[in-house]
Amino acid sequence: MTEFPHLSDIVVSTPSKIVLLVIDGLGGMPHPETGRSELETARIPNLDALAKKSVCGLLDPVLPGITPGSGPGHLALFGYDPVEDLVGRGVLETLGIDIELRAGDLAARGNFCTVDPQGLITDRRAGRIPTQESAHLCKALNAIKLPGVEVFVHPVQDYRFALVLRGPGLNEAVSETDPQRVGEPPLPARPLVSEAASTAGLINSFIASARKLLSGREYANMVTLRGFSQLQDLPSMGQLYKLKPAAIAYYPMYRGLARTVGMTVLPTGPSLKDAAATLADHVNDFDFFYVHYKAADSAGEDGDFARKVRALEEADAAIPDLLALKPDVFAVTGDHSTPAVMVGHSWHPVPVALYTQGRPGDWVEAFSERACSQGSLGRMPSRHLMLLLLANAMKLIKFGA
Amino acid sequence: MTEFPHLSDIVVSTPSKIVLLVIDGLGGMPHPETGRSELETARIPNLDALAKKSVCGLLDPVLPGITPGSGPGHLALFGYDPVEDLVGRGVLETLGIDIELRAGDLAARGNFCTVDPQGLITDRRAGRIPTQESAHLCKALNAIKLPGVEVFVHPVQDYRFALVLRGPGLNEAVSETDPQRVGEPPLPARPLVSEAASTAGLINSFIASARKLLSGREYANMVTLRGFSQLQDLPSMGQLYKLKPAAIAYYPMYRGLARTVGMTVLPTGPSLKDAAATLADHVNDFDFFYVHYKAADSAGEDGDFARKVRALEEADAAIPDLLALKPDVFAVTGDHSTPAVMVGHSWHPVPVALYTQGRPGDWVEAFSERACSQGSLGRMPSRHLMLLLLANAMKLIKFGA
Repeated sequence: MTEFPHLSDIVVSTPSKIVLLVIDGLGGMPHPETGRSELETARIPNLDALAKKSVCGLLDPVLPGITPGSGPGHLALFGYDPVEDLVGRGVLETLGIDIELRAGDLAARGNFCTVDPQGLITDRRAGRIPTQESAHLCKALNAIKLPGVEVFVHPVQDYRFALVLRGPGLNEAVSETDPQRVGEPPLPARPLVSEAASTAGLINSFIASARKLLSGREYANMVTLRGFSQLQDLPSMGQLYKLKPAAIAYYPMYRGLARTVGMTVLPTGPSLKDAAATLADHVNDFDFFYVHYKAADSAGEDGDFARKVRALEEADAAIPDLLALKPDVFAVTGDHSTPAVMVGHSWHPVPVALYTQGRPGDWVEAFSERACSQGSLGRMPSRHLMLLLLANAMKLIKFGA
Repeated sequence: MTEFPHLSDIVVSTPSKIVLLVIDGLGGMPHPETGRSELETARIPNLDALAKKSVCGLLDPVLPGITPGSGPGHLALFGYDPVEDLVGRGVLETLGIDIELRAGDLAARGNFCTVDPQGLITDRRAGRIPTQESAHLCKALNAIKLPGVEVFVHPVQDYRFALVLRGPGLNEAVSETDPQRVGEPPLPARPLVSEAASTAGLINSFIASARKLLSGREYANMVTLRGFSQLQDLPSMGQLYKLKPAAIAYYPMYRGLARTVGMTVLPTGPSLKDAAATLADHVNDFDFFYVHYKAADSAGEDGDFARKVRALEEADAAIPDLLALKPDVFAVTGDHSTPAVMVGHSWHPVPVALYTQGRPGDWVEAFSERACSQGSLGRMPSRHLMLLLLANAMKLIKFGA
């Protein structure tokens, strides 16, 4: 939930519009040869100009030192508790392939694997079978019937699939079945709390049926399941902030995350220019827009410094289109840092620039990690940003007499 | 309560003296024509010199984005939790007219109003009747007797009055009676928790008696009540910090707030020169002085940039008098920002300068929002300040071995 317990007493609905641009994996680190980070290397005149007229700072998604996944990173930006309101792995895997989840559904991440005649695992990933083969196997598993619940099995990628059980009384507190080692049998699912006993029973029935159905198959003859999780029953952004929020995100996982907090998810394309066009089409229909841009993170994850620089320059080129719609408040930040030199997500704080129409900025001369560290926002938890967006959009009245 | 659970183990009483000057509504924003804030516009050589020899920073009274009233803003400066330890509206209204409240008293804010023969409200403010008429009506209402509790009715201003009930078992969890609309009858007070049932009954009896007593009166023939609240049973600053604290504040609300945390409230005049004289008279009697200066907030609330500048210059002129008494620790900050361009309180962080006799400051060249943002204190919750005051006054010993 939100960090400020009296929020509902002070938040008001107004026509003002907020645009939050999330450049995935925005923060970086200096290149060892030049001493300049991706942001400091990129030619980003529009973001630099924005920073000059914004208030700037650095955001910690979870806590200093904690490297967040995209789930906690985004939830914090939306003002939720990135630890308490954690979204489980099964749920994220399922949302990540754009599958609808309902309250109470139990989601799990599945692996196709191979076992020998004694039932001992010989390959935990079934030779990384191609997705199209997985899809055939998933079709077979979809025929499994369990008492009192519906069963949905969806291919994800290669040997990975998502299992969703739908029905009353499901409980996510069930142990994982992957022993994480070859030469051992898959583990039975065990209830971790007494209320999860019937769920564990259903899962063990599913696995037994799967083993029977897959017996003698060429590619994989067994499954393991982990990351049992249910959608958190999070209050929507509409309830919390009296907003009408929309998500402009191309990739499924971010669309799924936006749905968990009650955003309307708009169709759009992969580039930030596409996103700006979508924003222009819908600018009058909502008062909060979450715009997601993926390419910077992907390049950082690949350790490709130059490609991350180009991705930031591509984002920069779309800034004028986003600003042309004159949102009352426009903020640019990231869900976490993905420095190319770290070849993955990192714990480093993320630059943020918060621009409010007609208000002066502070003295920051560029949009970068170093420059933003000197801004008036200082260093703060990402979770605070949502309160600042609402305040700057004049959607919060005074607290206390 | 305080944020550090082991405070009582490490706080020691010493002769050292702390002066905390609260310039109400201190923080501002740049004037659109000059780009300079009120502090940056004012000629404040004494505050600038103080900042140079102080450690400086920016304080968030509640949370970034939250605009505080004076209650939460001050409680945070005194080291209390500005959310948890919130002081209710009825209590503040009562304290604001310098009426004593005791633990367990129930305070409410009242409106005189008019109702038609059917009992429907025709004017929620009874034509904004003058205070002297209200005073007559309050005198009449003071005759109301309720079983088991004493009844006090005090005029506040115009149509507003304060009701205080004193007796055992009162509970503030009672709904308001003002329907906030004309053409509707006043609402009955309802208990919001079962423990408040008898309190709601007393309030409804009060209102029924008031209606009878006011029936046929020229100016107002009914009352509504809201903001039912009780003094939080806060530990005193004496208990928490082993201090002997005094308040030098002219306006009733701040005197009331100081009383809620156990300060001795000294008589003084409205100017900061008056306050300095009061401090000089009592400097040997206490070891913590809260000095309140109101004029900057009033000018900001009126949107009068030039008058706020003058108020800051007036405050500046009194700084040498305050420093002449050589307090061991002298801090200047505000309870919240009141930028003239916002014509009211705002969520922006408040500059702070903390000067300790004989200790070096950091590198800040002026006392302003921008300059202080570069100080070594960084940006922190206002609540932390009290710990820093105690530490710099050498009143905190080492925590842990």
